[in-house]
Amino acid sequence: MQIKNDLVLRAARGEKVERTPVWLMRQAGRILKEYREVRNSLSGFKELVETPELAAEVTIQPVDILGVDAAIIFSDILVIPEAMGLQYEMIEKKGPIFPETVQSTADINRLNVAEANDLRYTLDAIELTKKQLNGAVPLIGFAGAPWTIFSYMVEGHGSKTFSKSRRMLYTDPVVSHQLLQKITDSTINYLKGQVAAGADMIQIFDSWAGMLPREHYQEFSLRYIRQICEAIDEVPITVFAKGAFFALEDMVDLPCNTIGLDWNMSIEEAKRIFPNKTLQGNLDPCVLYATPEKIEEETLNMLSRFNGHPHIANLGHGVYPDTPPENVKYFIDTIKKSQLITS
Amino acid sequence: MQIKNDLVLRAARGEKVERTPVWLMRQAGRILKEYREVRNSLSGFKELVETPELAAEVTIQPVDILGVDAAIIFSDILVIPEAMGLQYEMIEKKGPIFPETVQSTADINRLNVAEANDLRYTLDAIELTKKQLNGAVPLIGFAGAPWTIFSYMVEGHGSKTFSKSRRMLYTDPVVSHQLLQKITDSTINYLKGQVAAGADMIQIFDSWAGMLPREHYQEFSLRYIRQICEAIDEVPITVFAKGAFFALEDMVDLPCNTIGLDWNMSIEEAKRIFPNKTLQGNLDPCVLYATPEKIEEETLNMLSRFNGHPHIANLGHGVYPDTPPENVKYFIDTIKKSQLITS
Repeated sequence: MQIKNDLVLRAARGEKVERTPVWLMRQAGRILKEYREVRNSLSGFKELVETPELAAEVTIQPVDILGVDAAIIFSDILVIPEAMGLQYEMIEKKGPIFPETVQSTADINRLNVAEANDLRYTLDAIELTKKQLNGAVPLIGFAGAPWTIFSYMVEGHGSKTFSKSRRMLYTDPVVSHQLLQKITDSTINYLKGQVAAGADMIQIFDSWAGMLPREHYQEFSLRYIRQICEAIDEVPITVFAKGAFFALEDMVDLPCNTIGLDWNMSIEEAKRIFPNKTLQGNLDPCVLYATPEKIEEETLNMLSRFNGHPHIANLGHGVYPDTPPENVKYFIDTIKKSQLITS
Repeated sequence: MQIKNDLVLRAARGEKVERTPVWLMRQAGRILKEYREVRNSLSGFKELVETPELAAEVTIQPVDILGVDAAIIFSDILVIPEAMGLQYEMIEKKGPIFPETVQSTADINRLNVAEANDLRYTLDAIELTKKQLNGAVPLIGFAGAPWTIFSYMVEGHGSKTFSKSRRMLYTDPVVSHQLLQKITDSTINYLKGQVAAGADMIQIFDSWAGMLPREHYQEFSLRYIRQICEAIDEVPITVFAKGAFFALEDMVDLPCNTIGLDWNMSIEEAKRIFPNKTLQGNLDPCVLYATPEKIEEETLNMLSRFNGHPHIANLGHGVYPDTPPENVKYFIDTIKKSQLITS
């Protein structure tokens, strides 16, 4: 199906665009009252993830309500460990908890390599969303980077230091690589399924990239992200490695189209490092708490700093749940009106 | 009093030293069973902070047991907001909680500028420690950077995003500066008191530096750190801005002697950026979970990378509480035996 507004896809491929496209990480979520209504009618977050009709509904909400240039399928990065055999629970206001964790080769041997069909509910949600979007905007699929998934599987929950998972990289690199490879194989199967189901683009989220020293990042994260990028060659890929300022130089030859920047990475430095990649980001999400004047000023400043480089506008982090939706809309509208500045 | 082992002080001043000195952030703490014995005999963490005899005892423990080249006074960065009028509680395994937070100019007006004597218990602990150390090694005093203290006072507790405190910088920069100035004035009074009580050196901890975009870091953090460095000119100062990779260039002309590096900052880049400053750090604390062979390999590798530059060996973060103390000792001994490599 022909996509009517394909600005994000063209920007990802480095083609010339009439204006900078925009979407937001976590746009399908708690910032919208329409999302909260759906969510509150259910027993929990996972019911929403696992019910294709509802996942499709909340995926499309920000396209209709906020006017973003792309949808991103509503799901969670932790569906992969679950499909591998490690159940998780999502605790309200606390985050995910894995009652069992992975500590040894024996634990790893008990895990499956997930097949795409093990995550049928997400693939169904993608098919349904594509049908309902009817070509309005592209649909982004996603997965967590293997290192980030590994962290949760070893740690069992979020952490300030992720010292248990980082510890394993030093104390048991062989076991670490075994687990990372199994996660990677699962993720490739899953993302191939997402593309077959209709995802027009893929984003890899490495949320805990910033915890590793550079050498470990190369060995235990980037190596596996590279395998994923090499395997998924049908659609543009974006890699967002939050906090991995130290690894940008190492990502230059990663076979992906777009690099996501967080809000304290330097736009000028990223343009210099990545002459042949599109950049995505990177407004501080806290700007969206400010007045319309301040939002406009900071947004135009960001656009002018990216000017001359292929760019997909976004925040430098997922939008914070208590952000006023009218401010999010103002950010999006500011970008959409700014073609004179960025062309 | 003449200090017998003044390696840390001489390294901080950029003087030639016989070998690289070493100490660890959080060395006086839960890694030592001798600390836990003292701590468990008390009602809480704050009782230990506020009892000079016990604070002195745990401050000296790592000098005796681990053989570090400096002691750092046992205290907490949150004594400053408390002395300003904002009480906190330290919740076991959770961290600090402020029942009341600062949100407005009226709230700020209710706060005092702390005087050194408001924190008499820390000054007494410093005097006592100096007496008991009897010149064996230097004693480091410390305080939190104003931005980090501000974050806790606005947020009320730790946070993954610190979005409330970051929000205030955008929505109310005037109020933000009022609070930051009041914290800074309090911190200067406190640190002058620490120096008068005998602290041989001062370290500023900016734990949440990495949350800010560069421009905000300059305006809302570095500006106040600079005021502190300018005011405390009697002893060497170390600034450790965790996660502030983006601000290193802005710290070149900060009037301090030493820059602390976290474990994912590049040693080579820091040497290039700071030709005239001592560097402190920066081994990944997770290395200390590994085998002696691995600890030695990684430690010697770090030393050789700093080689030729004034250096105080340390971890890139506070030592994690579950680190085996014998591994900490092995790290320290490896550095002490390494003079041939670093000279």
